[in-house]
Amino acid sequence: MTALPNTQQGATRAAQPKRRGRPGYDLESLLQIAAKLFYERGYDGTSMEELGRKLGITKSAIYYHVRGKEELLKLCVDRALDGLFAVAGEAERAEGRAIDRLEHLVRGSVGVLTEQLPFVTVLLRVRGNSKVERAALARRREFDHIVADLVQQAEAEGDIRPDVDPAITARLLFGLVNSLIDWYRPRVASDSAALADAVAKIAFDGIRV
Amino acid sequence: MTALPNTQQGATRAAQPKRRGRPGYDLESLLQIAAKLFYERGYDGTSMEELGRKLGITKSAIYYHVRGKEELLKLCVDRALDGLFAVAGEAERAEGRAIDRLEHLVRGSVGVLTEQLPFVTVLLRVRGNSKVERAALARRREFDHIVADLVQQAEAEGDIRPDVDPAITARLLFGLVNSLIDWYRPRVASDSAALADAVAKIAFDGIRV
Repeated sequence: MTALPNTQQGATRAAQPKRRGRPGYDLESLLQIAAKLFYERGYDGTSMEELGRKLGITKSAIYYHVRGKEELLKLCVDRALDGLFAVAGEAERAEGRAIDRLEHLVRGSVGVLTEQLPFVTVLLRVRGNSKVERAALARRREFDHIVADLVQQAEAEGDIRPDVDPAITARLLFGLVNSLIDWYRPRVASDSAALADAVAKIAFDGIRV
Repeated sequence: MTALPNTQQGATRAAQPKRRGRPGYDLESLLQIAAKLFYERGYDGTSMEELGRKLGITKSAIYYHVRGKEELLKLCVDRALDGLFAVAGEAERAEGRAIDRLEHLVRGSVGVLTEQLPFVTVLLRVRGNSKVERAALARRREFDHIVADLVQQAEAEGDIRPDVDPAITARLLFGLVNSLIDWYRPRVASDSAALADAVAKIAFDGIRV
């Protein structure tokens, strides 16, 4: 992941969230609320004023943490992307058959989705209307290539059904994973592992007995 | 489907699109463009003025077809819902095992998604901020119940894996189907049938050989 180019200027600040925190109004709460608003009203429909109102702080208190709305968006999508690329890196570096590394990637991605739900939701709704959004889309495409490569390898190794175009298999596989954001809401801590299990079972072996 | 309550006043007008058409600016083109704008900018971010500009007609020419933006949204989501409920009705009325009726519903839903892509996209992005949106969400829940019932029946008949909660199986199954809207773009006529095949194979038997 660290090998991925990071051209946004906010990165250095983002790397030190703890040093910049103020009690009650730390960067983490700010990001959580921002992600929620971006999702509910869209990025364009969310103003810094409204964000301040939600947090009970002034706009200038937000600017203590970030340069502006675009940096906030970047921090949100990077949180999601960093998690996904960390898992993808493990899957790429691991030894063994591609199908097992693919399963690791699927299970790990479900983990990232459930743990970073608001951030992944924002990432998956990005449309490409700004520099930050286009950079996020480019990293998503990079992630999709990693998945597609693993699917292709697994098919070449005879472990994935050859009767579906591997590009479509890859898309459907992560379509299944990403669909979680539409209905998953955390309840108990064990949810995430059970869900990763359910997704892996259904994706790899289907719903049929 | 006709049994479903339809409380919106615009329904009668919507039922006669052909009689209300004007060359080049028929209700169908209007709905297609409206759905595209609702998706790209969000419902709130789309104005009737902008819609008129995109169509090259005046706002009053749009009001020849519909009472306003909310009726447009209703016509869009109803197009998608009517398609999905038509397939669900077939699946419910059919004879035979629940798993086969579920497969019919999955394949048919892929057909509706690919044929009515802009409308299904709008439907799946509805948040419930207006009466029309809440009515659409209620019909979506009704559809989800039909899916969940079929999954439960199929599990009771021993055809669906019992080691995943049937409610989660149902959600993942349609998560897989609905994920198509994020990447499917029609190219050739045979796409839709091949895609329904791919989705059915992967959903029912998994990606593993």
